[in-house]
Amino acid sequence: MPLVRIDMPKGKSPDHRRAVADVVYDAMISTLNVPQNDRFQIISERDKGDLIVDPTYLDIQCSPEAIIIQITLNAGRSVELKQSFYMAVADGLHERAGMRREDVFIGLVEVMKENWSFGNGVAQYAT
Amino acid sequence: MPLVRIDMPKGKSPDHRRAVADVVYDAMISTLNVPQNDRFQIISERDKGDLIVDPTYLDIQCSPEAIIIQITLNAGRSVELKQSFYMAVADGLHERAGMRREDVFIGLVEVMKENWSFGNGVAQYAT
Amino acid sequence: MPLVRIDMPKGKSPDHRRAVADVVYDAMISTLNVPQNDRFQIISERDKGDLIVDPTYLDIQCSPEAIIIQITLNAGRSVELKQSFYMAVADGLHERAGMRREDVFIGLVEVMKENWSFGNGVAQYAT
Repeated sequence: MPLVRIDMPKGKSPDHRRAVADVVYDAMISTLNVPQNDRFQIISERDKGDLIVDPTYLDIQCSPEAIIIQITLNAGRSVELKQSFYMAVADGLHERAGMRREDVFIGLVEVMKENWSFGNGVAQYAT
Repeated sequence: MPLVRIDMPKGKSPDHRRAVADVVYDAMISTLNVPQNDRFQIISERDKGDLIVDPTYLDIQCSPEAIIIQITLNAGRSVELKQSFYMAVADGLHERAGMRREDVFIGLVEVMKENWSFGNGVAQYAT
Repeated sequence: MPLVRIDMPKGKSPDHRRAVADVVYDAMISTLNVPQNDRFQIISERDKGDLIVDPTYLDIQCSPEAIIIQITLNAGRSVELKQSFYMAVADGLHERAGMRREDVFIGLVEVMKENWSFGNGVAQYAT
């Protein structure tokens, strides 16, 4: 159910894009108690001027390689779980996709469990 | 006011894309009490690897034709209304756009009524 | 932290796209108490049929030049602040980007402050 939108600079290889998506998925499972195969992700490539990430905010030195990850998921995770998730994503992208940890922006949007239908027109989590 | 984002596989005809958008709009009116002409939709076509929908989660057999519909709307609809909406969308896409019901993923994000401006810099629903 | 998604018709110049993004950023600072350099924006160009904005809803006469701005930000701003923001965006786009005020659709999504990581895997606002 987490719905993941990943926006990254244009020109990355399919393998790189997949590696980034894999890291986010794996981190959701290992830190947010998301079940196996609960994977719904949309990747967008952006031209230079269309992905604007300030390179100085909070003294975090982002590069032009910075990406934005926005995830909609069920409400209720603790601050500690969220913190573990952010770290797992930044570490994973550094180790498995060669990214700088500074270049990983993440935002979460929380919703109620009846706000999802995974197919067949049914609200699978509502009951 | 519902703001609808529809992400689908690349290569569909303009007619198909329009039919999908029409179904979502019609379902909002018939099940969610959305007023006539309250239609704001963004359609994105995605390359194969950039729209990842797990083909097994919850035993729903998605195909590569699966689409993701994310809708931001005012809070307050009941679970029953949401369930009616999901079913109307899946049924409509099956009947009017030739889609499999398994291939329809829907997510809702709820917000407050003062969170919208429909033009002219005014929060039309705030008052 | 506000994460801004701007969807506009295809074919605008880089200068125009940048001007639109600048206006939204400046309005956040002047009306929503967003700090300097807190700028994270994603711009998408859309084909004609893929950006659907009803031209009559609420008697606001939108043109084919209408754009949709969706912003995710921390909860807690008053209705008055939001109203000031909408007006600053519409005025700014009119004055600095030559747009009609009717063509500016804005939607806000509010989240908790621990829902952001600006880099390095840290929830900078959580503490």
